[in-house]
Amino acid sequence: MVSLARDEAEWAPAGTPLAVVRATSPAEVRSVVAACYRHRVPVVARGAGTGLSGGANAVDGRIVLALDRMDRVVEIDPLERIAVVEPGVLKDDLRAAAAKQGLWYPPDPASAPWSTIGGNVATNAGGLCCVKYGVTRDYVLGLQMVTGTGELVRLGRRTAKGVAGYDLTGLVIGSEGTLGIVTEVTVRLRALPPPAITVAGYFSSVVDAGRAVAASAAAGLTPAALELVDRHCLAAVDDWKNMGLSIEADVVLLARFDEPGTAGDAAAERMVACFEGAGATYAVRSTDEEEAEALFAARRLAYPALERLGAVLTEDVCVPTAQVPEMLARIERSARKHAITIANIAHAGDGNLHPLLITDHGDDDARRRAQSAFDDIVADALALGGTVTGEHGVGLLKKPGLRAELSSAVLDLHRGVKRALDPRGILNPGKVIRAGPLDRAAVIARSTSRDAGRGDAAPAGSVNVRAPWRRRRGW
Amino acid sequence: MVSLARDEAEWAPAGTPLAVVRATSPAEVRSVVAACYRHRVPVVARGAGTGLSGGANAVDGRIVLALDRMDRVVEIDPLERIAVVEPGVLKDDLRAAAAKQGLWYPPDPASAPWSTIGGNVATNAGGLCCVKYGVTRDYVLGLQMVTGTGELVRLGRRTAKGVAGYDLTGLVIGSEGTLGIVTEVTVRLRALPPPAITVAGYFSSVVDAGRAVAASAAAGLTPAALELVDRHCLAAVDDWKNMGLSIEADVVLLARFDEPGTAGDAAAERMVACFEGAGATYAVRSTDEEEAEALFAARRLAYPALERLGAVLTEDVCVPTAQVPEMLARIERSARKHAITIANIAHAGDGNLHPLLITDHGDDDARRRAQSAFDDIVADALALGGTVTGEHGVGLLKKPGLRAELSSAVLDLHRGVKRALDPRGILNPGKVIRAGPLDRAAVIARSTSRDAGRGDAAPAGSVNVRAPWRRRRGW
Repeated sequence: MVSLARDEAEWAPAGTPLAVVRATSPAEVRSVVAACYRHRVPVVARGAGTGLSGGANAVDGRIVLALDRMDRVVEIDPLERIAVVEPGVLKDDLRAAAAKQGLWYPPDPASAPWSTIGGNVATNAGGLCCVKYGVTRDYVLGLQMVTGTGELVRLGRRTAKGVAGYDLTGLVIGSEGTLGIVTEVTVRLRALPPPAITVAGYFSSVVDAGRAVAASAAAGLTPAALELVDRHCLAAVDDWKNMGLSIEADVVLLARFDEPGTAGDAAAERMVACFEGAGATYAVRSTDEEEAEALFAARRLAYPALERLGAVLTEDVCVPTAQVPEMLARIERSARKHAITIANIAHAGDGNLHPLLITDHGDDDARRRAQSAFDDIVADALALGGTVTGEHGVGLLKKPGLRAELSSAVLDLHRGVKRALDPRGILNPGKVIRAGPLDRAAVIARSTSRDAGRGDAAPAGSVNVRAPWRRRRGW
Repeated sequence: MVSLARDEAEWAPAGTPLAVVRATSPAEVRSVVAACYRHRVPVVARGAGTGLSGGANAVDGRIVLALDRMDRVVEIDPLERIAVVEPGVLKDDLRAAAAKQGLWYPPDPASAPWSTIGGNVATNAGGLCCVKYGVTRDYVLGLQMVTGTGELVRLGRRTAKGVAGYDLTGLVIGSEGTLGIVTEVTVRLRALPPPAITVAGYFSSVVDAGRAVAASAAAGLTPAALELVDRHCLAAVDDWKNMGLSIEADVVLLARFDEPGTAGDAAAERMVACFEGAGATYAVRSTDEEEAEALFAARRLAYPALERLGAVLTEDVCVPTAQVPEMLARIERSARKHAITIANIAHAGDGNLHPLLITDHGDDDARRRAQSAFDDIVADALALGGTVTGEHGVGLLKKPGLRAELSSAVLDLHRGVKRALDPRGILNPGKVIRAGPLDRAAVIARSTSRDAGRGDAAPAGSVNVRAPWRRRRGW
């Protein structure tokens, strides 16, 4: 039961649901939501629970609606290049089903082996290849979903193009279960890309690596992935998997190019030059696909490897590419200032950084310092023209950040949209934004009694209400 | 004044505005909308007026807000690959400004030399290259706009990724001025693609050409454009420009490939094979870039060339690619059945067809027959799993089609969203969907007195209310 009450954002509070329903059909989802609507009972939808912002965390005494058993690949149409899937299909299962037809579903969050398409839609998941191929929203053509009033509707289309009405499909994508509960997803697929060429660069400082990222953008390169992994991650993966990575570098940049023919070779050569120009201690085009795969595997293992070391608070800021070096420098300063270990993995080519703040389990003082560092990082990202969340979503952890990023007029637009699609506020209340009376009453953490009834207040323990960037914006 | 009262959908009714304001700054736009909000006066925004659905047509006695003088390219950032432009910037002017930095803004409606970015955003404009490169929504990162309550807000971001809150940017794109008035647009740019290779196929029937399109999709080809031009268009362009095209073919398919290096050559060869396999009388990879440009120029000239022949009612249905041959066959049947000339240009690779129904000016009987054919085409597109509008928008001409395509529950969601963003219903009332009291009162055509007050009724003369597809859906 506990595993269905929360996601992987271990710092975000979670309540105890009254009941968990594991739906097996759209009709069942509709029945549950219709009953919740009648009785004004909130409902929290969830997929695999791999989220990192607390978006799927349960609310005390309410319904959790798990969609993991709706896991059928309904259709792959190789001619139209579309797939129709139920929300509980694992991301990598869709990828495998498409690959059998020579097709490819590009979005690739690092959670791809475990996360569901429904969860990917709820958060507009990104991943490694978005720097060239875009995010979930770029691939979803249509949705079937249950509305906040318990009606089963179809949004979007199956055709390549279409402008019949407002883009409600795109609106629901990334809304974290607060505007509708998705029961079927129609995605566009691409032809499988050519085999990729990997370029690795080893750097002695994270800021040098950031400069290499900015240099590659200035050179006009479009890698299919451009990932950064720092020494903390390399060491944690080594400790766990004994791969010997951390001996060779403090920071690794991994780039991939999948242009066909000689164009990929040329791009790889130019990337090597960018790495070297930015001060790489070693930069090379991989000639060994197995070695290249191992490097990307290490990248994907970084998060679980760090989780073995303590409680991990995951950041997800995204800044303009030119600001990557400065943002990385500021993260290092925050780590020193607050005496906290901050590891960095990053979709560096997108400017989407994942500083990971690690504390010993049970060390309350370290936790407070980590929270202060988290607040500093959010403030720095906004100051550099960035956003508080690149791909993980707002959930619970980034609610104060969202209020700092958006103007009050834009927050009002959000509330209006929320009320339009969920008039009784039963869909995942307390997440993303407060919009209705049920949000006010949503008790999310058993330990937050002092915050209960405070409405839009941050969940206890998740965000320091005296954070400097909140003061700056007049909070 | 007349030219500012309507767009190019000559069959859509237009009223006479009380006043036209040609704004020169976001502050002026805000002042106008705030005044309209206070006094509950509708306001119709417009760019260059190249729309084809009547979306920018004036309403009797209300304000037209022209944005064509806000035509500044504010910024091109080659490192972040973004451009910031005012809404009145011409599409081709943005393209030219980007090209100076080696960058490219892909969406390319055939109106690109005359249409504005603001209008492109309002309709989510597509064009020739979307089959590979997507539509306007795929490129817009952020917007500045004036809301229905007269507030100036920023939506979206400048970063590559971001999920902070609902995708209101995407929601406003394609909303045809009914959810906000855009005052600045931030778009992402791409690196300029390599020079394209053109493949031309000549066919003796439009259905054979449709089969070639389906065959190329089945072969897994991803052309950067795949356009169809039929004999009516070829003859009209010949009449006008004397290019000698119609002597050689009944239907031409034009494909472009811009893969780098030899990959483009290989794709072009495979496309020639697809054309020949589907019965092309002649299929060739162009070796002469000037000749290839002339063929695409003819494609772009087709619409204005046909306008010289009579009143043109433009269709914009989009069907699954596999249904392109069947849809083209049904269009031919409709032409015969209603004794109407229907020319076809199509973004065939997207399944986005533009049958053009041509009647003599002043021939009321032909006009009625054309209207019946228009209704049949819409019904056929829906029956084949398509949408009533691929890229032109709903405006006035496709309002009945929208009601046929969307369920009443989804239409209710639209109305809720409209009311959330435009609570007094002052933004372009009477277009897309009826949502508020001002829509009911919106007198769009001076000649529609018998329809005034009927609320969501079709504008007089634009759609036959006895259309068979309306009956089938319970209208």
